[in-house]
Amino acid sequence: MDSRKLRVAFQGEPGAFSEAAAVQLLGENILTVPRPTFDALFAAITDGAADALLVPVENSLAGSVVRVYDLLLESDLTITAETILPIEMNLIAMPGASPADIHVVSSHPMALAQCEKFFAAHPQFKRTPAEDTAGSVREMMARGDKSCAAIAARRAATHYHATILAERIQDNLENFTRFVLLVSLDTAARGVAFLNPFASGERLLTKMSIALRLKHQPGALLAALEPFARHRINLLKIESRPIHGRPWEYQFFLDVETEMHARLEPALADVSKATSDLRVLGLYAPARNNAASQEK
Amino acid sequence: MDSRKLRVAFQGEPGAFSEAAAVQLLGENILTVPRPTFDALFAAITDGAADALLVPVENSLAGSVVRVYDLLLESDLTITAETILPIEMNLIAMPGASPADIHVVSSHPMALAQCEKFFAAHPQFKRTPAEDTAGSVREMMARGDKSCAAIAARRAATHYHATILAERIQDNLENFTRFVLLVSLDTAARGVAFLNPFASGERLLTKMSIALRLKHQPGALLAALEPFARHRINLLKIESRPIHGRPWEYQFFLDVETEMHARLEPALADVSKATSDLRVLGLYAPARNNAASQEK
Repeated sequence: MDSRKLRVAFQGEPGAFSEAAAVQLLGENILTVPRPTFDALFAAITDGAADALLVPVENSLAGSVVRVYDLLLESDLTITAETILPIEMNLIAMPGASPADIHVVSSHPMALAQCEKFFAAHPQFKRTPAEDTAGSVREMMARGDKSCAAIAARRAATHYHATILAERIQDNLENFTRFVLLVSLDTAARGVAFLNPFASGERLLTKMSIALRLKHQPGALLAALEPFARHRINLLKIESRPIHGRPWEYQFFLDVETEMHARLEPALADVSKATSDLRVLGLYAPARNNAASQEK
Repeated sequence: MDSRKLRVAFQGEPGAFSEAAAVQLLGENILTVPRPTFDALFAAITDGAADALLVPVENSLAGSVVRVYDLLLESDLTITAETILPIEMNLIAMPGASPADIHVVSSHPMALAQCEKFFAAHPQFKRTPAEDTAGSVREMMARGDKSCAAIAARRAATHYHATILAERIQDNLENFTRFVLLVSLDTAARGVAFLNPFASGERLLTKMSIALRLKHQPGALLAALEPFARHRINLLKIESRPIHGRPWEYQFFLDVETEMHARLEPALADVSKATSDLRVLGLYAPARNNAASQEK
């Protein structure tokens, strides 16, 4: 193990979409560290097992990954980069297997459900649920049965030296997940940001994710958003969630974006006057490979 | 079949949480109509198979059900009621089986993942993924093997005459899903609203769900929200989503609430001046069994 390589933890098994996203963002010269659950993942930096986490925050079909936002808010981690990965499902089989050999196709039920048209066109395939997409490839290879196939990311086929029989078999080709890279505030403060949005000049597009709490009363949200409009900062995303045990308070998550980095600080100062609990979750360069322009 | 009974379609198999939500809202004297997917569900009224749909819109752990919002926006249906169901996982087995008999426990991977502590405390149970929670009970009963159990809603145990060996085995006891009842605009216009928020007086709390589109520019959201603040209407929930193929336009979903029903119309008129595409998704009584006060 090369200890100078950046260790990036992700949720899932080797070959998962999250691991593919880490490599898309940072290249192959990293050490990826699999963790079975989001809770275990968020412990990886504290445990000394990883330098950074690569986590999904939003999928174009399934919406926000609420648990990740909760864990991020409880942590002292900060977002330092983002990347958008097309979620492409592939039919993966043993080397040497041909489509005519396949009788059973296994994957996570969500992946199976995203390939309804494929299964309708191939009624001879018996759908079999698995706990994990990449794990279904691992199990298939361990079984060594050429009549079995799995549905997973291309990376899972590569990792397990399996064969892709059919590519992009999902119903909806516009399936994207946005991932962010998280590091500790200490790491970020030491200047070990992996992609510095300000490195190449003042006018580079900067994205900022913030969390804030508001009283559930008329006008509270308006007062919190008004400074962004006044400082001409674009609001990209807004989401509200009730706070458990505080029925009249709401947690908001916002993404804003500006080419004028200098506008962020005075806007935040004004926003903080209107909110009870304001936290910057990260300041980073927006992904260039955004879902609207992606061609792959 | 009693044709005078209200036919309410839901996504899932008999015994699903969605069916339990339909019964919680409307009582047992309805005909529930299962549909395998959300797409098939939204076709049920047009097909003449159902009078109403009961759909999940938001879970306290998993967030919004994005696909339902998309289908609702494409449909000519309207929200006419809401209900909040606690999502409680139960260990369900064959009649006569005891906990010591169980070796295999199957359910949807999301349900299995919500019971990590239970599995950690019972390492003798082999987790086995299934495509559906209620379906895992059906399969267990069909197999007739007392060493198998399933994890599903109480309703699935009742439906299949199975036995509950352990109740509320999920890690997080604060797991709630908000469901809404959808009917066609025609049905709603004929006054066949099932729960009329205005039936018992002007000051009853009214909830309104709306969808609107905004240009992605500073101040656009602020202008759209300002009328609610000015008319002193509470904003309960806000969520934004990019619109596919229109990178600079955003779809917003809002829930607002007021005791002063008369304020809604002038507020909406003002909001419509600031938005390109405004649609009222429904006007209904908020669930009395809200997540903050629920005790069960």
